Amino acid sequence: MSLRMILRILGMLLMLFSLTLVPPTIVSLAYQGTMWDDFGISFGITLITGALLYLPNHNARKELRTRDGFLIAALFWTVLGLFGALPFIFEGTHSLSITDAVFESFSGLTTTGATVITGIDFLPKGLQYYRQQLQWLGGMGIVVLAVAILPTLGIGGMQLYRTEIPGPLKDSKLTPRITETAKALWYIYAALTLTCFGAYWVAGMNWFDALGHSFSTVAIGGFSTHDASIGYFDSATIELICVVFMLISAMSFSLHFTAWREKNLLQYFQDPEARFLIAFLALLSLITIGTLWWTQTATGYDGLRQGIFQTVTIATTTGFGVTDFYNWPGALPMLLFVAAFVGCCSGSTGGGIKVIRIILILKQGMREVLRLIHPNAVIAVKIGKVSVPDSIAQAVWSFFSVYLLLFVLMLLGVMATGVDQVTAWSSVASALNNLGPGLGDVAGDYGGIPDPAKWILVLAMLLGRLEIFTVLVLFTPAFWRR
Amino acid sequence: MSLRMILRILGMLLMLFSLTLVPPTIVSLAYQGTMWDDFGISFGITLITGALLYLPNHNARKELRTRDGFLIAALFWTVLGLFGALPFIFEGTHSLSITDAVFESFSGLTTTGATVITGIDFLPKGLQYYRQQLQWLGGMGIVVLAVAILPTLGIGGMQLYRTEIPGPLKDSKLTPRITETAKALWYIYAALTLTCFGAYWVAGMNWFDALGHSFSTVAIGGFSTHDASIGYFDSATIELICVVFMLISAMSFSLHFTAWREKNLLQYFQDPEARFLIAFLALLSLITIGTLWWTQTATGYDGLRQGIFQTVTIATTTGFGVTDFYNWPGALPMLLFVAAFVGCCSGSTGGGIKVIRIILILKQGMREVLRLIHPNAVIAVKIGKVSVPDSIAQAVWSFFSVYLLLFVLMLLGVMATGVDQVTAWSSVASALNNLGPGLGDVAGDYGGIPDPAKWILVLAMLLGRLEIFTVLVLFTPAFWRR
Ligand SMILES: [K+]
Ligand SMILES: [K+]
Repeated sequence: MSLRMILRILGMLLMLFSLTLVPPTIVSLAYQGTMWDDFGISFGITLITGALLYLPNHNARKELRTRDGFLIAALFWTVLGLFGALPFIFEGTHSLSITDAVFESFSGLTTTGATVITGIDFLPKGLQYYRQQLQWLGGMGIVVLAVAILPTLGIGGMQLYRTEIPGPLKDSKLTPRITETAKALWYIYAALTLTCFGAYWVAGMNWFDALGHSFSTVAIGGFSTHDASIGYFDSATIELICVVFMLISAMSFSLHFTAWREKNLLQYFQDPEARFLIAFLALLSLITIGTLWWTQTATGYDGLRQGIFQTVTIATTTGFGVTDFYNWPGALPMLLFVAAFVGCCSGSTGGGIKVIRIILILKQGMREVLRLIHPNAVIAVKIGKVSVPDSIAQAVWSFFSVYLLLFVLMLLGVMATGVDQVTAWSSVASALNNLGPGLGDVAGDYGGIPDPAKWILVLAMLLGRLEIFTVLVLFTPAFWRR
Repeated sequence: MSLRMILRILGMLLMLFSLTLVPPTIVSLAYQGTMWDDFGISFGITLITGALLYLPNHNARKELRTRDGFLIAALFWTVLGLFGALPFIFEGTHSLSITDAVFESFSGLTTTGATVITGIDFLPKGLQYYRQQLQWLGGMGIVVLAVAILPTLGIGGMQLYRTEIPGPLKDSKLTPRITETAKALWYIYAALTLTCFGAYWVAGMNWFDALGHSFSTVAIGGFSTHDASIGYFDSATIELICVVFMLISAMSFSLHFTAWREKNLLQYFQDPEARFLIAFLALLSLITIGTLWWTQTATGYDGLRQGIFQTVTIATTTGFGVTDFYNWPGALPMLLFVAAFVGCCSGSTGGGIKVIRIILILKQGMREVLRLIHPNAVIAVKIGKVSVPDSIAQAVWSFFSVYLLLFVLMLLGVMATGVDQVTAWSSVASALNNLGPGLGDVAGDYGGIPDPAKWILVLAMLLGRLEIFTVLVLFTPAFWRR
């Protein structure tokens, strides 16, 4: 791809993104009337930069190749993450440092949901809304990336799912497939958001909170308009709605697409990945509830309610809260953080390694044990009824090990800035899995850790969201050849 | 394998092991004259139990099959670990609990080197000697297991090295190959020990310390006759000798065998695994020394000396100490613990995942990045000049992921007993990698953690030493069929 074409795409992205600054401007005007000018300035800067990049290169059109998807995905999150930081910088009273503003923006757009801000309740309404919307936009991006782009690129074995995508599959051209698929996916995404919004509203949230939380729920984002997160509402109904929509959003949107097109809910029960996720979450919830009861951390109905909510919200990498789960005893917080490494189904808005990869790794592990006993036997690894080709298994392994390798490197990096092990471990795990909450010094918010650590976490969010290889590929000379 | 044959082998193992209680009895008599009776009783119990198992089944001979190697290896460490605990139980003044005694014995025999004892300097000489000898025996066991048995069984891709073993390779019978190989390996092992002993002695250790430390050095064990470990001697010469012999023992004994048979030291420079290990340790040492200097933790010559020694002893999973490295700043202790996961070369006495597997995983990771750019290219992964077959790559991946999975499960288990994250993380990593030292509450010794945690660590040591799959296989129904 030529530099001019990159600039043209960048310009287009920025101009589109500038439009997303209009709603928060309106919200600002409608409420206290503060901050509309900050959003206006951010809008102007983004639009003008976009136009300056786009206009001189608007005729640099060429059919995009599949491979160009790597670069577009990386640009989408990097550049929008940077420009998305502008309103946080301009906002007067909190006046976040550039590092903090970029952290907050990336955290929103990658649907991580870690925050450097305390006193979210006291933020201007416009900024409260903007944070939630960032997550929703990030979710929109990831749905298309995960369902339409990554499988075609074959990242970490995701070509397994390639057959489920509508559109001209064998075609090496990116645009027709993406536009068609994206439209279908966004309808589903919008419909889910609207339903979630309605449910929250009926359950008692005001329209502002209902909209904001529907944004961050379907995006598996975890941002809230309150410091106390979902716990603010203290409503079992709202928690139940939240759990249901987290579960739906944790499943593959290509599965939703199929189920919707064929009007067949059985699809969900037949999908090995969705089944594994539900079984896994059920088991985790049982362990959590049992431990809460056993240790008398929370008893009876409270234990049940907190146990289910926190398990689902952490294990699906959403990251809402109804209680200080980081103070839970023994291995519980660690257990939920480990579960977040498993994460959601592929093609969802959630983070983590993805359920399908974990299934493959477990099955391959079992096969290896059998192969030790019967060295000459040919044992196929199957997902559902499909035999998994070796090339896909290898892609999954490398994804897994590179994921963990980068995790360890970034963990060491954060520790080298002087952060203790518990804080560093949880914050890198949280960022890489696009989860949000942390333990130790970042149990409340991420404001207190050194700036270099924050930048490493921003990188971790980006790597996690882009399934690592999208970023790594850009650093190989081979990518830029031809 | 029939039950009677298992009992016969067990009996033989125990009778042989009982002989190893003779030297510590003599040492006890020669020194203070205490504890010789404890060793005598342990000797008697072990011998008689062995005889009771062996005699009724002595005619249950059948040619051992390759597969039986799994069971024999597991029995060797489990049963000897249990009977090896007897002297610790009988010893009067310290009177370890059964849990502590078993922990100490397994820690010795698996060459882990974690200890529950404080005041090692004040132990009876006989017990001091016995602990060192346990490590040496464990090292003898692991050399044969790692070079002669595991590659034949194909655990975690170790069949890569099958061709380097002398003996009838394609034969499915276990005994002839093992006896021939074992003899050659033990000569090398004994020669190394003797040389190390002499060097320590010349450098100023008394003969007792020299022998004891040569035992635990060539076994990559880490036990010492002093609480202050190698730091007790405060001698750069002794530290240098120690580093050299740790490095030698961290390399494959089948490489030593080839180099010795062909009288060609170039072998070491041509071996990709040995080269990687040396480069890796050199890089680590540089980082460590640099950080020590930069943070003024240790300056000048001290920083150099401490940096090299602690890096080599932790990264090779030996676990000696010359300074309280667990108090080093930032990411340093964690970095060295992570390096211990890489561990030593396959076929050495050291622990960890093993260098060859890490090389394969890194190369496969790089291949995957290239494959994303050129989806149809066939890219072979090579070690030296040899193309690695896919089946081996898969075995390595599964080893890696099952290793990490078990690590996380045991970590959660230890944390569930109430141990904090830093202590739990380091102790499970230390046990699984057969390293020894820990951080947090186990920075000094392992006496203070709850008993259930100690048992999990014993399991971790065993799993690590037996390369995990040896144990896992025994829990499959398929193994016991036919
Ligand atoms: K999240
Ligand atoms: K050791």
